[in-house]
Amino acid sequence: MDSCVPIPANSDFTLSNMPYGIFSTESEPNRRVGVAIGEHILDLSKVGCFCGPILSKCCHVFKEESLHDFMELGPAAWSEARQTIHKLLSSSEGMLRDNTNLSKKALIPQAEARLHLPAKIGDLTDFSASKKHAENDRIMFTDDNLQINQNWNYMPVAYHSRASSIIPSGTAIRRPNGQRLSSTGIVTFGPTEQLDFEVELGALIGRGNDLGRPIPVDDAEKHVFGMVLLNDWSARDMQSWEWKPLGCFLSKSYATTISPWVVTMEALQPFRCDMLDVQKPTPLPYLQHRIPSTFDISLHVHLSTEGAESVTRLSTTNYKVTPTTK
Amino acid sequence: MDSCVPIPANSDFTLSNMPYGIFSTESEPNRRVGVAIGEHILDLSKVGCFCGPILSKCCHVFKEESLHDFMELGPAAWSEARQTIHKLLSSSEGMLRDNTNLSKKALIPQAEARLHLPAKIGDLTDFSASKKHAENDRIMFTDDNLQINQNWNYMPVAYHSRASSIIPSGTAIRRPNGQRLSSTGIVTFGPTEQLDFEVELGALIGRGNDLGRPIPVDDAEKHVFGMVLLNDWSARDMQSWEWKPLGCFLSKSYATTISPWVVTMEALQPFRCDMLDVQKPTPLPYLQHRIPSTFDISLHVHLSTEGAESVTRLSTTNYKVTPTTK
Repeated sequence: MDSCVPIPANSDFTLSNMPYGIFSTESEPNRRVGVAIGEHILDLSKVGCFCGPILSKCCHVFKEESLHDFMELGPAAWSEARQTIHKLLSSSEGMLRDNTNLSKKALIPQAEARLHLPAKIGDLTDFSASKKHAENDRIMFTDDNLQINQNWNYMPVAYHSRASSIIPSGTAIRRPNGQRLSSTGIVTFGPTEQLDFEVELGALIGRGNDLGRPIPVDDAEKHVFGMVLLNDWSARDMQSWEWKPLGCFLSKSYATTISPWVVTMEALQPFRCDMLDVQKPTPLPYLQHRIPSTFDISLHVHLSTEGAESVTRLSTTNYKVTPTTK
Repeated sequence: MDSCVPIPANSDFTLSNMPYGIFSTESEPNRRVGVAIGEHILDLSKVGCFCGPILSKCCHVFKEESLHDFMELGPAAWSEARQTIHKLLSSSEGMLRDNTNLSKKALIPQAEARLHLPAKIGDLTDFSASKKHAENDRIMFTDDNLQINQNWNYMPVAYHSRASSIIPSGTAIRRPNGQRLSSTGIVTFGPTEQLDFEVELGALIGRGNDLGRPIPVDDAEKHVFGMVLLNDWSARDMQSWEWKPLGCFLSKSYATTISPWVVTMEALQPFRCDMLDVQKPTPLPYLQHRIPSTFDISLHVHLSTEGAESVTRLSTTNYKVTPTTK
């Protein structure tokens, strides 16, 4: 289906995507909720057409400076919003197409907007999500044999990272200072000499649960609002000195970059696919999905350096498969 | 100096202490800032006498449902507030003593109040703060020799824990379910069989720093607003299965209890004392305090079980020394 907003051929921001974000403009510096479409942002604080059963009572969520209140409403509200916005933006409907006043007010060129963090994030959990990743960590940080810890085969292995240093894409970061152990056994302090990055997917949890009340595995996805691209910056020399026995800390906590646009789980449904492997050993019952699946999401890493004529492709991978390097 | 509010002989809530907290009452359910004094709470949203250079312009901080805005003002504001409140509560001043209307409005019996978390806490960092503690962990969780990791001797070793499950003292917790490895090598899931607790001190960071801008070690204490008692609940069987290689996660993240009253660093000044030991090896320059010191804070652990006639003292220790058991 076509949109009444022009969408360049190579745009990620189509009528099928419609990711949410928080933005502000110079003329209107208060942060508010928008949806990316082509080279524009639809300012949801201006449209006032959410007349479905849930959102008609809580339109204020789009005037907030965080997606938090909208995410808290849960999947029925997210679905209702998506239907309304889809209708509004489609070329076959007149609401926005024929209303010059509204489109002037509600369609902001992305070039004129500043993008912010989509939410005030309360906790950041970093999962060792692929076996290859666990194996790579083992190679990088231990001298002993290459077998990963057995717990990885039984449970989602993860740690908490620092929520307060999550920044939106484009924010400059400073190379961190820290301690490292030299090969001759000397401990020094200074700027990291092994600044690294990892392409990852971040999931934003929308609706929470009461303390102590578990979420059954088949309901878990109802709590996931959407996904962002994530750059897990790491200072590897600091990490190899600090990680025993409590795990990563300062080597990771100086910055975590996420894309400001959140692609909803509804928008990702067409990319759902079967798992490539059967999990072994069979997960314990509380971790068994009724219909196990994953997503076919292609991921690329490019490096752009000052003065270089073009970007360099460093690696390409897919969420559904074991990563491969270029 | 005496207070115009009666203070029982054994009370912790004297004119020298005056800890801050967030409370609400049945008749006035909005959360607001108070100071504990004797068996009462002084409701700071009601007193309106902050006429010093900083707080006269931002009295609203005491009407907030979190100490965050007050803590963000920094040590000069904290000091100004302490002086004003001290004057107000002292028996030699007439402001509160002689104003029945004000004292009726602003002095709430603690028995009538509900206490909440003092702030919306953005990150929780758990430090392996004493060598004895690091050694105990080593004994509990590893089969190899008893020497702690060498990094402990050079840097503050810590990990992030879950900020969203911090709860105020008195909140019931649920024994968590989780995975553990049996002595015969079988992985099972169920309620923890080794629910443990640790008495700790928690420090509330008031003023932050800009991303990437370090705080010199001699300025660090200016960022610490105050201290709370902390119960670091742990599921030891889950911990010993999950902790390699990323550290504690679900075995700690189901609950962290803190006291609702925050004792300020100013109130703790009389308990400052010399370090008992000289640190070896000498810390790297960026970690060297100009005047190293610690605090003489006595800590006791008591267990109270349903139906028991009295509480059982489990251990006693002091912040300044290596912990001893009863």
